[in-house]
Amino acid sequence: MARSCLAIVLAAGEGTRMQSAMPKVLHKIGGLPLVGHVVRAVQTAGATRLAVVVGFGADEVAAAVRPLAAKAEIFTQTKRLGTAHAVLAARAALQKPVDDVLIVFGDTPLIEETALGAARQALAEGADIAVMGFHTDNPSGYGRLIEKGDRLVAIVEEKEATEAQKQITFCNGGLMAVRGKHLLALLDRVENKNTRGEYYLTDIVALGAKRKLEVRAVAVGIENVIGINTRLELAEAESLWQHRQRVAHLQRGVTMLAPETVYFSYDTQIAADVLIEPQVFFGCGVKIAARAVIHAFSHIEGAEIGGAAQVGPFARLRPGAQLAQSARVGNFCEVKNAAVGAGAKVNHLTYIGDASIGAHSNIGAGTITCNYDGYNKWHTEIGENAFIGSNTALVAPVRVGNGAYVASGSVITENVADDALAFGRARQVNKEGRAKELRARYAALKSRK
Amino acid sequence: MARSCLAIVLAAGEGTRMQSAMPKVLHKIGGLPLVGHVVRAVQTAGATRLAVVVGFGADEVAAAVRPLAAKAEIFTQTKRLGTAHAVLAARAALQKPVDDVLIVFGDTPLIEETALGAARQALAEGADIAVMGFHTDNPSGYGRLIEKGDRLVAIVEEKEATEAQKQITFCNGGLMAVRGKHLLALLDRVENKNTRGEYYLTDIVALGAKRKLEVRAVAVGIENVIGINTRLELAEAESLWQHRQRVAHLQRGVTMLAPETVYFSYDTQIAADVLIEPQVFFGCGVKIAARAVIHAFSHIEGAEIGGAAQVGPFARLRPGAQLAQSARVGNFCEVKNAAVGAGAKVNHLTYIGDASIGAHSNIGAGTITCNYDGYNKWHTEIGENAFIGSNTALVAPVRVGNGAYVASGSVITENVADDALAFGRARQVNKEGRAKELRARYAALKSRK
Amino acid sequence: MARSCLAIVLAAGEGTRMQSAMPKVLHKIGGLPLVGHVVRAVQTAGATRLAVVVGFGADEVAAAVRPLAAKAEIFTQTKRLGTAHAVLAARAALQKPVDDVLIVFGDTPLIEETALGAARQALAEGADIAVMGFHTDNPSGYGRLIEKGDRLVAIVEEKEATEAQKQITFCNGGLMAVRGKHLLALLDRVENKNTRGEYYLTDIVALGAKRKLEVRAVAVGIENVIGINTRLELAEAESLWQHRQRVAHLQRGVTMLAPETVYFSYDTQIAADVLIEPQVFFGCGVKIAARAVIHAFSHIEGAEIGGAAQVGPFARLRPGAQLAQSARVGNFCEVKNAAVGAGAKVNHLTYIGDASIGAHSNIGAGTITCNYDGYNKWHTEIGENAFIGSNTALVAPVRVGNGAYVASGSVITENVADDALAFGRARQVNKEGRAKELRARYAALKSRK
Repeated sequence: MARSCLAIVLAAGEGTRMQSAMPKVLHKIGGLPLVGHVVRAVQTAGATRLAVVVGFGADEVAAAVRPLAAKAEIFTQTKRLGTAHAVLAARAALQKPVDDVLIVFGDTPLIEETALGAARQALAEGADIAVMGFHTDNPSGYGRLIEKGDRLVAIVEEKEATEAQKQITFCNGGLMAVRGKHLLALLDRVENKNTRGEYYLTDIVALGAKRKLEVRAVAVGIENVIGINTRLELAEAESLWQHRQRVAHLQRGVTMLAPETVYFSYDTQIAADVLIEPQVFFGCGVKIAARAVIHAFSHIEGAEIGGAAQVGPFARLRPGAQLAQSARVGNFCEVKNAAVGAGAKVNHLTYIGDASIGAHSNIGAGTITCNYDGYNKWHTEIGENAFIGSNTALVAPVRVGNGAYVASGSVITENVADDALAFGRARQVNKEGRAKELRARYAALKSRK
Repeated sequence: MARSCLAIVLAAGEGTRMQSAMPKVLHKIGGLPLVGHVVRAVQTAGATRLAVVVGFGADEVAAAVRPLAAKAEIFTQTKRLGTAHAVLAARAALQKPVDDVLIVFGDTPLIEETALGAARQALAEGADIAVMGFHTDNPSGYGRLIEKGDRLVAIVEEKEATEAQKQITFCNGGLMAVRGKHLLALLDRVENKNTRGEYYLTDIVALGAKRKLEVRAVAVGIENVIGINTRLELAEAESLWQHRQRVAHLQRGVTMLAPETVYFSYDTQIAADVLIEPQVFFGCGVKIAARAVIHAFSHIEGAEIGGAAQVGPFARLRPGAQLAQSARVGNFCEVKNAAVGAGAKVNHLTYIGDASIGAHSNIGAGTITCNYDGYNKWHTEIGENAFIGSNTALVAPVRVGNGAYVASGSVITENVADDALAFGRARQVNKEGRAKELRARYAALKSRK
Repeated sequence: MARSCLAIVLAAGEGTRMQSAMPKVLHKIGGLPLVGHVVRAVQTAGATRLAVVVGFGADEVAAAVRPLAAKAEIFTQTKRLGTAHAVLAARAALQKPVDDVLIVFGDTPLIEETALGAARQALAEGADIAVMGFHTDNPSGYGRLIEKGDRLVAIVEEKEATEAQKQITFCNGGLMAVRGKHLLALLDRVENKNTRGEYYLTDIVALGAKRKLEVRAVAVGIENVIGINTRLELAEAESLWQHRQRVAHLQRGVTMLAPETVYFSYDTQIAADVLIEPQVFFGCGVKIAARAVIHAFSHIEGAEIGGAAQVGPFARLRPGAQLAQSARVGNFCEVKNAAVGAGAKVNHLTYIGDASIGAHSNIGAGTITCNYDGYNKWHTEIGENAFIGSNTALVAPVRVGNGAYVASGSVITENVADDALAFGRARQVNKEGRAKELRARYAALKSRK
């Protein structure tokens, strides 16, 4: 039977070095708050229960966690007295029996399921405490992991390290997996006899070793454990994270001409054999079916794109945009909360909002659905095989029927029946020679000045 | 007299690791299929005849080669039994006398004329076989080139290499130049007594050495010879290729503010002293004359841009767009199959399709040429020195004469004579206080809810 | 008391390797000519007087310097006979007493105030000449700095260097700080007995050492001193410079999702807690207040953006655009020389030029201010709380009053009073079944062909 697992996410810090009014763990990568990345990683790694320790901006952090983990237990750390103190804020969660406890931080968004899995595997193989460490050529500033044989015997901080210990390049990543039955007893023995008067989680390593528990270090890639403290680090982590997405999408059979210019969100779903040109931005909630083409300079958010559909260049799809099979939304077009039918074309300088367009209809350049009257938003319905002439304003609520034809330059305020022709435009008047007269008059005025 | 040269391009593979329905060699870099890059390279290196060996997707591959090399001989390899077997598919081509034979692969798009030239030069200097090799710090997995003095005596695969041979960092690139009079005899002696039962082209090295032929290795940069097997490798090769174009354009006197954000096609032609802002995409068939400025976020394909013309930001030029000297196409404008005259301005939110605009005409913001009536495409002609007021719809077929003036907001369905003034818009009606009443009524409705 | 300081900027060169008609120092990085970067650096480093030596394109270079340094003394070097000769062109400036003289080149745009400050500090601590040098792993081609103890005794050119000297990796950067009272005497002793017959500034090192002056080398980062000679080097320097801006903005609390895709100008001002999405271009003269959001694909120049305002995606703000608090300018919108009031919305496919929009007004999709009549530009005024229906043309000069309402699809040529309702559009006509007839007629025509 699978081992039960409680994940404790420490997310109480303020993050003053971010220079932001927002709690640190709510800054986003790929559209998801840092803490959300950590929550998703522990879930993928098999956490059956989740405890989140909040502090600064407690309500906002809790609100960000809830949509990802409805049953998460939220604990508030009122004073910030160190990492062991933070874990103890979740004492009530620790009192229920559990096999494994994962202790992770809310500001390490690049943590991967594989790293967490390796730590849990160590417990499964007999360890009582598994500390995640990383190898680095430049260990200065990090706590060093002191091993004896295959056992971890101590974590020594840089300033307390001997010259020999300073040569060690295997460093403490801070994250741990601990056998549930031992954790609370260990934490209760942690003392705060140090310069800063704080209770450090790392002290349970020495306490465990003293009690003859099996303590091990598990090596993981440094990016798994490094926290975000500044916006520069945030940008660097985002860059690494985006690179991971690009590689993953390429490996799944997506073609990208310039992957380094494509921005993904955490939930972007793209089928194989989709072609993505350079300079594309995916906000949250995008799903794209096979053989679709996303041309350059497209900005897509909350949209579903059907197979072999074509988007862009210079298209904006906003939440609720739904493109059916082989539909096209072209340059300088915006689609919001609207369904575009199979094979329908919205190709130039058009705004489609709060609307539905039937299959194989053609929407001319410069068409605007006038969905807002200053008070309410209204719906526009366009049938199948309809033709909307260029530069037409469709004043909602309005319906243009199947097979109907709207002449260019019309303002359509009333429904157009199936197969009807509608126009709403003024008759043209030409004044022979008048442009020449205007030019002459202007030239005369100018010469008088 | 120049040596005659036959290039054999091996392009029969499926490329299953691409996870694509399309033959591997048809995936594109800079708008040109991989095999097209190879064909162009051998042509530049002086190949006087071209033989292409196709297999998977034979017709599509042949169709991609034809436009680049009308006289290419296409051979089909029905079974895939190794590289020597593939070359022998072109037996008929080899039977005609030729000085040099270049054997290259259809999936090595970064091959350069200089590398091919170096191999041919080795033949010119007396070698019978010249194998392209590359130096790498990480030779693991590659066949090693075993040299004795200046002769290549064997190619040893990784798994058959001794420890000493594994230390060699000069590796087999697979591509070769072979003296024409020897090649067929060598190929006919290649055997398939190996694990996979295939006929390997590399075996001609040992066969040649045995026959006392002069076999040499020619060192080339690794990117020349490395093939594309996955979309990740495709993206990496595209990135290297784009970098080459950026450097080449900079060296020819083009200014780019952020070259790493400019995407080129294989046939992009840009004169010196053109300025290109960041984030520009060049599709195929673009030619730009001196002192033109391409502003940021422009998407240009199949277009000719005259001297000192200005494009963008946010402009889209589609096939058939021709901008004369000092013409301007500005933000959120699309031009397709249309000539824009010298000094003419199309600056804002405009669609010009199937049209011609005379010199020094001014096209107002929001102008749309309504070129499609649902059945056919029609032409719009605008003369010289004409003025098209903003938000005008020009319903084609229609002509606006030289010096004519169209009032803003008009729908133009009939020709406008030279120097005439045209308008086609409704008269404005104002209702005093009515907006206030509407607000009050809405507020009343809302409070009733 | 602060030491007085004269900076001499050498900016006479043509820069033939740029392949440009423009003098080299006028090529731009971040919107500022190379020489402008140097002028700003010496000003920040405390230069109290500025002398610029011009030659090729003298008037243009002088004109580029004037706006940054109104009191700069401009000297013309008519013949180009070496760097010492160039400095002597500013003899008149050197004849006035000054503590420190900084000698810098107009083509080293990455020079930083800290490097210049370090050289001046050396003078303050007793040195007579401080030469800026840099350490590099690849010194080939550079002059080597020969030190004895803490003194610089000679600068040896590559070709005259002994094997031992070639091992030195501390190289001459060319820039210097020299005690004002010694400089002129030293320069007058420089001779041109060398292959090229030129007067080299570096010779004052040996002359100074001979005269027992205290000569020192000051180590600075290589990018401070490396000049631009080709467009490739220009692009590389721009890339380094942009990277510096990105880091600086991140450190000041700006959030950027993909900083490497954001292009800054030299004078871009952004408050903390502004969010910038990927792919944004800042031309010169942009100022953004706190909590504004700049969405992807925005092109902004000469614009002021108020607190919590939202811009883009796909927005273009041109010079004179002023967005008040919480204003919004959305996709495919252009704003030029126009004030957008607090909370006002210009969200879709709109051109606002030469206009003012009052607070909380809503401008519908596809609205165009028709500001140009072919002869003059005119102003559009929209009051507060006004509603402009979609696809409206506002023909300037025109005023829409506070609380007024313009119906969709109108052409507005006359003023609309406060609280009035205006419309200017044709009545719609529907022809039942006519679209079906048209289709049938077209099908018949087609079948006849």
